[in-house]
Amino acid sequence: MNENVFTARLDQFRALLRKNGVQAAIVPQADPHQGEYLAPHWQVRRWLSGFTGSAGDLVVTDHRAALWTDSRYFLQAAQQLEGTGIELMKSGLPETLSIAQYLCQVLNSGDTVGIDGLLFTQAQVNELKAALGAKDIKLVTNLDVIDEIWSERPALPEGKIFVHELRFSGRKASDKIASILEDARGKGCETVFECMLDSIAWTLNIRCNDVKHTPVATSFLYLAPGASKLFIDSAKLSDETRAYLAGEGVDVLPYNEVKTFLSSLPSDEKVLVDASHTAYELLNILGGRATDGGISAANRFKSVKNAVELEGIRNAMLRDGVAMVRSLMEIKRRVSAGEPTDELAVAEILRHYRSMGENYTDESFGTIAGYGPHGAIVHYEASAESSSALKSEGLLLIDSGAQYFDGTTDITRTIALGNPTAEEKRDFTLVMKGHIALAQAVFPQGTCGTQLDVLAHQYLWQHGLNYLHGTGHGVGHFLSVHEGPHSIRMNYVGHPVLAGTVTSNEPGLYVEGVHGIRCENLVECVPAMTTEYGQFLRFETLTLCPFERSLFDLSLMTETEIKWVNGYHATVASRLMPLLATDEERRWLSEATLPLS
Amino acid sequence: MNENVFTARLDQFRALLRKNGVQAAIVPQADPHQGEYLAPHWQVRRWLSGFTGSAGDLVVTDHRAALWTDSRYFLQAAQQLEGTGIELMKSGLPETLSIAQYLCQVLNSGDTVGIDGLLFTQAQVNELKAALGAKDIKLVTNLDVIDEIWSERPALPEGKIFVHELRFSGRKASDKIASILEDARGKGCETVFECMLDSIAWTLNIRCNDVKHTPVATSFLYLAPGASKLFIDSAKLSDETRAYLAGEGVDVLPYNEVKTFLSSLPSDEKVLVDASHTAYELLNILGGRATDGGISAANRFKSVKNAVELEGIRNAMLRDGVAMVRSLMEIKRRVSAGEPTDELAVAEILRHYRSMGENYTDESFGTIAGYGPHGAIVHYEASAESSSALKSEGLLLIDSGAQYFDGTTDITRTIALGNPTAEEKRDFTLVMKGHIALAQAVFPQGTCGTQLDVLAHQYLWQHGLNYLHGTGHGVGHFLSVHEGPHSIRMNYVGHPVLAGTVTSNEPGLYVEGVHGIRCENLVECVPAMTTEYGQFLRFETLTLCPFERSLFDLSLMTETEIKWVNGYHATVASRLMPLLATDEERRWLSEATLPLS
Repeated sequence: MNENVFTARLDQFRALLRKNGVQAAIVPQADPHQGEYLAPHWQVRRWLSGFTGSAGDLVVTDHRAALWTDSRYFLQAAQQLEGTGIELMKSGLPETLSIAQYLCQVLNSGDTVGIDGLLFTQAQVNELKAALGAKDIKLVTNLDVIDEIWSERPALPEGKIFVHELRFSGRKASDKIASILEDARGKGCETVFECMLDSIAWTLNIRCNDVKHTPVATSFLYLAPGASKLFIDSAKLSDETRAYLAGEGVDVLPYNEVKTFLSSLPSDEKVLVDASHTAYELLNILGGRATDGGISAANRFKSVKNAVELEGIRNAMLRDGVAMVRSLMEIKRRVSAGEPTDELAVAEILRHYRSMGENYTDESFGTIAGYGPHGAIVHYEASAESSSALKSEGLLLIDSGAQYFDGTTDITRTIALGNPTAEEKRDFTLVMKGHIALAQAVFPQGTCGTQLDVLAHQYLWQHGLNYLHGTGHGVGHFLSVHEGPHSIRMNYVGHPVLAGTVTSNEPGLYVEGVHGIRCENLVECVPAMTTEYGQFLRFETLTLCPFERSLFDLSLMTETEIKWVNGYHATVASRLMPLLATDEERRWLSEATLPLS
Repeated sequence: MNENVFTARLDQFRALLRKNGVQAAIVPQADPHQGEYLAPHWQVRRWLSGFTGSAGDLVVTDHRAALWTDSRYFLQAAQQLEGTGIELMKSGLPETLSIAQYLCQVLNSGDTVGIDGLLFTQAQVNELKAALGAKDIKLVTNLDVIDEIWSERPALPEGKIFVHELRFSGRKASDKIASILEDARGKGCETVFECMLDSIAWTLNIRCNDVKHTPVATSFLYLAPGASKLFIDSAKLSDETRAYLAGEGVDVLPYNEVKTFLSSLPSDEKVLVDASHTAYELLNILGGRATDGGISAANRFKSVKNAVELEGIRNAMLRDGVAMVRSLMEIKRRVSAGEPTDELAVAEILRHYRSMGENYTDESFGTIAGYGPHGAIVHYEASAESSSALKSEGLLLIDSGAQYFDGTTDITRTIALGNPTAEEKRDFTLVMKGHIALAQAVFPQGTCGTQLDVLAHQYLWQHGLNYLHGTGHGVGHFLSVHEGPHSIRMNYVGHPVLAGTVTSNEPGLYVEGVHGIRCENLVECVPAMTTEYGQFLRFETLTLCPFERSLFDLSLMTETEIKWVNGYHATVASRLMPLLATDEERRWLSEATLPLS
């Protein structure tokens, strides 16, 4: 596909803008469900611009086009946009105009900007309206013209949904619906409208494969006592799943009828929504019927795992740990033996061993295997062109995970392929000290992740080092590997870390051109104690896989920290050893989990 | 004064409410300047109810009255309200109605509630309007009737203002005004209106004694290029201060003319305000002219001390440290010798030694000297009735500070009057571990106090212990001992801790009925290093006074922590020793600062 394809598409798009009387359009990386990952049907920005990154918004005017993306993608975007005439706008740099500033600069007063109101939130629309209004530029929110020019546009995903069995989910959909409606009544509402795909999948105990690595189904959900509706393409249903939904009290309507349905609701109905996760156009249709209750009940309830889910996750961790041990063994063996092995092979090895485990369905995201300098690229994913050959030196960062019916995993290990240098050991140990401090934290009920984050950052900061990504994200149960509503990060996220949530603990350090380090386990938040000062919580580590012993610099560690590593390794050994198949595997794990010395 | 005084006052007040056609009034603990401490003129709630606590709002209806206050004052309020017919409403308990909920319960639809719009912010008024509106209850904001019944009402403070000399303040008022107006222009405004008394005092380099322990002058400030106005009672000015203000480009108008003046401003003037710190009535008068710029420039600039201020604070700390050493010596000597000494005497001893120091003007707040169980009452201030006699056992918590022309101090020491118990040592050491962790923190520029707070709390939490007050507040320069806009606390305060700010570091622990512990130094935020990851900051401790050596439990401490205490004590000894007068003092300090063992 050469560059002319994109200039031609842009020109066709411009013709449509003229036909619709708008002087510019914003094409975001978004779907109507506020999802992090998009089904191919919604990859409009990619189709128009040729830029394939996971973040980036395109603006097209009569004579210009510009694409905003962040520092992860500056290089890739520059390459992919070459020859398209699309200007690269580097988000996050102080000199870069915002989209609204840019539009105010290139348009005239009286002009009109068009967007598809299904792909924006109310807050985004309000912000755009205010900024554009200052120059008397109008915003119309019903521009939906792509179908007219994208003849090969992928259909809405057509994969069949399946039921996430009660032995995995632990709670019937009808029960969950009852709880959500009870929560809504507490907020003065009789009904609930939900757009987020993982919240819908959790509520109904359904799964699908619409989004890569995230087992959700493209749909909207309306809950009402005795009259709940799932808006979904009928091709996605079998007689069995249709019967299942009916049994849980949920009728099925076509996905595209959601607008008609919402507009037909009685004008005095009180519908509870999470406005920040509801498409502007749908919220607009609901109008005065909508009550914004903040983060939706499904989203909140989903984050607190029940006993069956937690047992499933612990079982999945056993299988994932065995696969990790076998993968690390094989990678190290190949490198020692001088067998050609590159970053892509690492991903393949992990897939191979994981897929041997019970209940495995998929990776939970594309493996990040970054060798040496590639480890310092936080969202690196090896391609055939970039994939580095592994040598018997330096650090290899491996961030990977799997989807099992009984749980979702996410683990990062940084391993040494040779004899580690003093710098490698120092950097690794400072990251681990933060990991350990967070793993050992005790905190009162109600504490949010922003209040805990410094525990993971503190030792790096003492040395003038830092990492800029979050320290911990929630993890779904056979659902999205990234979920909220809580989060452990510097930026303020006020939702408390609740008992029963599963969260990553993943501090890191990225030295450009040298190496990247990240040490990630998943942890469950559990009660620690109740005293006269109230309920205290702590984390219990779920992930089972040794950290690289040779990378610890004991001179930088306290006795308590060394004790934590030794205790963790003892647990890993005792849990995984019975599941290993060969003496070689058992010997390897024994050595990998010896006390630090 | 017997209880009938207050029922009589309430009845007179009710008659005025009827005359003004309102069915209820809210009388808050507030002044028109959003100050923490009030001049006697504004102590209306105290005069009407008899309740003397520093926090509490009164609601009066035709037949009822109720007072909301927090847990610090439950006991005191219950006693003081006895016989007044005023119901005590315990704020913070889940079952306690809010003021608006209460009014909705006791009033009828169509009723009207009156408030004095000078004593509320816009946010408070909006919240009240929304809550009352739900029951169709109106809110009028011009109820100002107290003068009609409070014949002995203290006048607005009449003390003379004086100039805070340039050798202390380090920067001319005209310079500060220029910076504030430049900041306003950056926000599209030509003029600025400021209500906060400490921000006004800082901007103009004026001080006064209108508020106990806080050297501010009751006034409003309007800044405009070449036309700035200070609204202040003319009685407070001398020819000299009037001339000084004129020389800095500031005209003087009577305090009570502020409303007339604001309403006379041109309708297209853009006035920058900090809406959250501007009286509702004044903001209302400004109307469309007001632009809310968030925290005012004076407030922000004031928090970052200049080199002259910082040198002054360091000098004040030397004098304050000497006074603390002498006070601690005398308290311990008296207790050992069995000389009758009580909590009130402790405050007196501190005042005595501090007042001998150069530039001393006042305490910076009423000394908290809490012996044994009294130490566990966070805002305890001894009275003649409560004052405990000190014995040679248990812990004494002393939180005190002074106003010097060159700086404001605030220090808490917890000392052992006898041979400390294991529990006393454990509790003290856990508090100190948090103090030390915060004192040693290194963090990237832009970090806010909420992100650091856990460092001070973490060791207590590990033991299921906690304290619920903030860990650190900003401190003014010969101004309020509590200032913003930054703060180190669990609750989210997003303003970053900037280099040049002075902040307290004061974790604590309060064991009801047993003892209270708090360990407080003031720290300056200073640059730590600049690396490829940006600018890092750290704290430098300013306060100079030993911690109680006998209270450290070394078995709970790391080597790094012990080293920090020893290093701090070495600094205290080297700075204070040359300033001590007698061999006895020098011997005491030498012993008090010996390395821990």
